Amino acid sequence: MSEYTDQAPNGATIGIVEKQFFTFAAPPNGMALESGATLGPVTIAYETCGTLNADKTNAVLVLHALSGDSHMAGFYKPENGKASNAKPGWWDIMVGPGKGIDTNKYFVICSNILGSCMGSTGPAAIDPETGKEYAINFPMITIADMVKAQKELMDHLGIKKILSVIGGSVGGMQVLEWCVRYPDMVVSAVPLATTCRHSALAIAFNEVARQSIMADPNWNNGDYYGKRKPDMGLAIARMIGHITYLSDESMRLKFGRKLQNKSALSFEFGAEFQVESYLQYQGNKFIERFDANCFLYITKAADYFDLAREYGNDSLVKAFSLCKAKFLVVSYSSDWLYPTYQSKEMVTAMKKNGLDVSFCEIDAQWGHDAFLLPDLRLDNLITGFLRSAAHDALTI
Amino acid sequence: MSEYTDQAPNGATIGIVEKQFFTFAAPPNGMALESGATLGPVTIAYETCGTLNADKTNAVLVLHALSGDSHMAGFYKPENGKASNAKPGWWDIMVGPGKGIDTNKYFVICSNILGSCMGSTGPAAIDPETGKEYAINFPMITIADMVKAQKELMDHLGIKKILSVIGGSVGGMQVLEWCVRYPDMVVSAVPLATTCRHSALAIAFNEVARQSIMADPNWNNGDYYGKRKPDMGLAIARMIGHITYLSDESMRLKFGRKLQNKSALSFEFGAEFQVESYLQYQGNKFIERFDANCFLYITKAADYFDLAREYGNDSLVKAFSLCKAKFLVVSYSSDWLYPTYQSKEMVTAMKKNGLDVSFCEIDAQWGHDAFLLPDLRLDNLITGFLRSAAHDALTI
Repeated sequence: MSEYTDQAPNGATIGIVEKQFFTFAAPPNGMALESGATLGPVTIAYETCGTLNADKTNAVLVLHALSGDSHMAGFYKPENGKASNAKPGWWDIMVGPGKGIDTNKYFVICSNILGSCMGSTGPAAIDPETGKEYAINFPMITIADMVKAQKELMDHLGIKKILSVIGGSVGGMQVLEWCVRYPDMVVSAVPLATTCRHSALAIAFNEVARQSIMADPNWNNGDYYGKRKPDMGLAIARMIGHITYLSDESMRLKFGRKLQNKSALSFEFGAEFQVESYLQYQGNKFIERFDANCFLYITKAADYFDLAREYGNDSLVKAFSLCKAKFLVVSYSSDWLYPTYQSKEMVTAMKKNGLDVSFCEIDAQWGHDAFLLPDLRLDNLITGFLRSAAHDALTI
Repeated sequence: MSEYTDQAPNGATIGIVEKQFFTFAAPPNGMALESGATLGPVTIAYETCGTLNADKTNAVLVLHALSGDSHMAGFYKPENGKASNAKPGWWDIMVGPGKGIDTNKYFVICSNILGSCMGSTGPAAIDPETGKEYAINFPMITIADMVKAQKELMDHLGIKKILSVIGGSVGGMQVLEWCVRYPDMVVSAVPLATTCRHSALAIAFNEVARQSIMADPNWNNGDYYGKRKPDMGLAIARMIGHITYLSDESMRLKFGRKLQNKSALSFEFGAEFQVESYLQYQGNKFIERFDANCFLYITKAADYFDLAREYGNDSLVKAFSLCKAKFLVVSYSSDWLYPTYQSKEMVTAMKKNGLDVSFCEIDAQWGHDAFLLPDLRLDNLITGFLRSAAHDALTI
């Protein structure tokens, strides 16, 4: 995505990384979910970069967004002895030696969320009871459930205090959930381009995206594994999502009204404007890597997320009352999915609890997705914040 | 829609109105379209309110938006002697005796656009050559084609000068097209909540909506008449559109995170938040009255519309250079589909041509749809503007 910026990220790529797995909550007990259901066994896929220090105080937990995975940085091992030409992890611009989250200093962990299809247990995983994919028999999950699974992973890794929990969008919701649910474990936190609860507008977009999946006859009430998949529905869902990740300004600058073929209008249906072609490309790329049922479950979890309702009897101030973390809250000026006023609401609630909060609205034209793009301002903010958090942790 | 406001509209309802039809462009010549294709015969459904004066100088042409029709005000005649409990026309709050567009003074005409399914010729109409619906054999149409058909209707009614051309959204595009295409016929014009060309964002939403229709297997490449219709696809298209007609603020105030059933979360898919239920209702209501192919054609016409490209070699200033009308341009502060900056662009281009332009951004929270809601500010603006235009017309 270097086309978006002329600011090269700092540092180098970490090199070869490996996908790891951790399984817990074996039946009959399983993991207790917020809905009241239980699930087990639960497998969490994760990746680590850097080295955990002796007293285990340098762990940074990176949390990914809706369709992300545990592969945050570096490259997977080349297969068959050939050098891999695969892309690096999704946040390679931020995580690595000398980068914003410096793997020379920190032990950085990223786990694939519960409910996803990138190695962790989700609707596309095999239900050991039936030997078939869970599909829509998978229990409804919440952001809290995702975080509880991450807590199991931290326990497994022997990490009792996390130096910083960092993530954007749905990852940012998990950051907030971490701070409130496990206040004694979180030293500092960076919720990026996120919200304490979805607005009606955000729910509306998610619901239309879900409807487009469920309207696809191939969805077949979720039972499509080994058959034709609801690709059309999922592609449209992704196109809807993608619009909300950009901004009026970024789309104007990137596409405007440019035509796919530079000659005259075709007067036919089909991708004619570049923006149409771009969206179709995004939709088609998405269906190669993501599962439609997982999309349904994770968007629903995001819609349910409501910190004030969950912890504060509808008061956000009350919800943050047990929280101890130091915060860096970042919003983006052109993010209309989770606009700055929503970040300000959380900052106000944190401050009313006397918490140490830095807030920055980054002036950027790229909409919600800006947090994933190379930006020295975010690099520098996170570098400084982590240095300060590490210093505080030593002196506590 | 009185729930949206506490401002009662002025005036009374006009009473009983009738749908009328005008047919022109009989084959073999037909009507020459912008695409190069020809179409004929063409029927235009229309409604008139008020009385045309002797010198035919009091005609006001009202132009409807994407899914509107010619039934702008009053009620249709009760059928079977029973009083009709149907809703009045779509702009009854604005058109009637003593209202913003006062039918005691003006002869008000509204015609259903070319390409629609509300009485005018469109993809759902019968192609006389085949005896079957045109479906996607209907030629691609443009805003200019819609306006050329309206010009035929004006000729038929003997109207050589139109006192004012008024419309919002896609209706506003027709207003602008009228002023530029037939500069000698238009005395004054009121483009409301509209744009001189769709942004990439607006095209993106339309394209995803079209994709959702075309992804519905019942769409069947447009050939669904007399068979199962692409209702799911069309409902989703409408849901996408409907989100863009509202605003973050209006959705927050109207729905927020309110649940459909006031008790706890259901942890199930399906309409759980009120905003989800509302969108599904809007989608389902739409499929009862609108045709999927018409939706495809009209949204495409809106995407193609580009006054600067069409008339100014990409210069909007040049595009307005032959224009003579006096303008009242109105935008709404929370309209993010056609934001105020787009109205300001047209105002600047008009002013650079020395045109008489009034511009008003109405501070309203209801998003793009605000122009359809009762609002005394718009009533008063239009009342005053029409009075002034009528006065000017007498003294010219």
